[in-house]
Amino acid sequence: MVEKSHRLGLELRPHFKTHQSRSIGEWFKESGVHKIAVSSLGMAEYFAHARWDDILVALPVNVLEVDIIQRLTPRVNLTIVVDNMTALVIMAKKLSTSISIMVEIDVGQHRSGMNWDDTKAIAGIVDFISSHENYNFAGFMCHGGQTYQAKSKEEVLAIHEENLAKLNSVTEPYRSKFPEMIVSYGDTPSCSLSTNFKGVDEIRPGNYVFYDLMQQQIGSCTKEEIAVATFCPIIGTYPESGKAIIYGGAVHFSKDHLQVNGAPYYGSVVFMTENGWEFPDVDIPVVRLSQEHGTIAIPPGYENKFNIGELVGIVPVHSCLAASNMTWYRTLEGGHQLDHMLGNT
Amino acid sequence: MVEKSHRLGLELRPHFKTHQSRSIGEWFKESGVHKIAVSSLGMAEYFAHARWDDILVALPVNVLEVDIIQRLTPRVNLTIVVDNMTALVIMAKKLSTSISIMVEIDVGQHRSGMNWDDTKAIAGIVDFISSHENYNFAGFMCHGGQTYQAKSKEEVLAIHEENLAKLNSVTEPYRSKFPEMIVSYGDTPSCSLSTNFKGVDEIRPGNYVFYDLMQQQIGSCTKEEIAVATFCPIIGTYPESGKAIIYGGAVHFSKDHLQVNGAPYYGSVVFMTENGWEFPDVDIPVVRLSQEHGTIAIPPGYENKFNIGELVGIVPVHSCLAASNMTWYRTLEGGHQLDHMLGNT
Repeated sequence: MVEKSHRLGLELRPHFKTHQSRSIGEWFKESGVHKIAVSSLGMAEYFAHARWDDILVALPVNVLEVDIIQRLTPRVNLTIVVDNMTALVIMAKKLSTSISIMVEIDVGQHRSGMNWDDTKAIAGIVDFISSHENYNFAGFMCHGGQTYQAKSKEEVLAIHEENLAKLNSVTEPYRSKFPEMIVSYGDTPSCSLSTNFKGVDEIRPGNYVFYDLMQQQIGSCTKEEIAVATFCPIIGTYPESGKAIIYGGAVHFSKDHLQVNGAPYYGSVVFMTENGWEFPDVDIPVVRLSQEHGTIAIPPGYENKFNIGELVGIVPVHSCLAASNMTWYRTLEGGHQLDHMLGNT
Repeated sequence: MVEKSHRLGLELRPHFKTHQSRSIGEWFKESGVHKIAVSSLGMAEYFAHARWDDILVALPVNVLEVDIIQRLTPRVNLTIVVDNMTALVIMAKKLSTSISIMVEIDVGQHRSGMNWDDTKAIAGIVDFISSHENYNFAGFMCHGGQTYQAKSKEEVLAIHEENLAKLNSVTEPYRSKFPEMIVSYGDTPSCSLSTNFKGVDEIRPGNYVFYDLMQQQIGSCTKEEIAVATFCPIIGTYPESGKAIIYGGAVHFSKDHLQVNGAPYYGSVVFMTENGWEFPDVDIPVVRLSQEHGTIAIPPGYENKFNIGELVGIVPVHSCLAASNMTWYRTLEGGHQLDHMLGNT
């Protein structure tokens, strides 16, 4: 992604919500990355402690946490996101430092953001920000998350082109008045698959640090590019019913799942090799999750690969949630333990 | 549940996996509870530190954690569960202390446990345990978790009766040889709704400490009996599209959901009152979860109840996972902060 952003003349602001790890963050620093996105003010504070000094909190600001903004702004170039006037008014009363603000535009995901065609409301917000003494208008951001519903590379690209057209119709009129403003664009599927980022200054992919089975289903990556797996002890084997039980459940993976052949699919088995792991020739899925257990459906002929007291790897459907539940990592090379914001290491 | 177990002459061994809290555990102690179930050896250790000394780890033992068993057995009456010979053989080589063992029977959930009608294999396991110097045969346990698929009280009771009949056909022949053995029976729906526990010595409900919307849908409880909610800041309001966005997503609730009118349903809005909270007259659901955001669908007329910078309560679909993600509690009376095993308080 570093190489791609250089080639396309884009700034790269990777989203760190996927790994939430100071140690993994260092790998980005070594690749020349110097600005990041996060998904909470608490996460901004965690990475500020790890000496990141250009941080975007990429969802509408939680005004109940103004104290964190106040603490961080003297030492960090912090940018927050708004999509409404109320938050600006509340913060104006509470903040005594100046803060950079991006306006979130909804280009079709219909989660947060101002409607891309609500020209008047957008102009009102930009006016308010740029005329307030403590606010710096930093630009526009959007998350084209409808790509997560796509089922192929072509679908992702079509959605992406539509998102870009809407975003540019919002942003272009502001370029002359705010020549320094940034247009920031997110989502791993688009950033993985497209090379057209016309009108965009900065991309914010996050999940691509690990990828996962959901991204593979969308078409963002191959199975072999997925870089994280959870290794779980086998605690029960039931060859007569073609299943094994692992100590690894909803508290470890979340319940995010794919639908495969009409049935829920919670993860994919991999086996350890000398240099990492490999997928078996036949897909071996996790088909059920309880709070602490998971059930693996074993295809005929693979029974002897599942033995009580051994570990089996599970490549996750959604790596952000699996990582967030495990709270630490171990590397394949060297076996180093890496921290996660929610862990204690 | 304390009163019910007394009345029915049953021992109550509440499952602590739902709350995972030393402080909440104390409330059980005050009600006369002196033995508990947990869902991992780590959780057994946590509660052993809180001076619980009769603990059942109610899923097939993870033999990779024999060291924890070794540490706990001198000071805790620890009972572990097996459903296979391999785990017994592996542990026999590693364990130098004696340990109580229950055999798990699968009466139809088809998760873990020995098939209830595999009389010969069950007899083999019981023989092995009772003849090994370090193993004490403690009895049989089962989890009739098919009740979680039920859609009414009647369905729960029908499943429960079937489970009991299968369990008793396994256990009765062993009563004369092992007069001290315990038959332990689980699941909150059965324990909430039935009064027939023929052949059962001990019940292990867990979720009933809080209940949740899944239990309400099954028929185990009313909405008003649900005793936990997550309070989330409102970070976006979109009256024109009838929604609000909260800072509260998949990392806070998990992605467990119900299907209501064909759509996923992740939680139910409640409003704070002087003495607690109340449900609105019209159901207000959380209809979508991202990693850190949730989307609330607001019915017409309720827009003014959702204001940026205020908190709104979300009663969870699955309280065990919501609690596990939040890692602490605050009481409504007195506002005391209560610990959770995964938190730091």
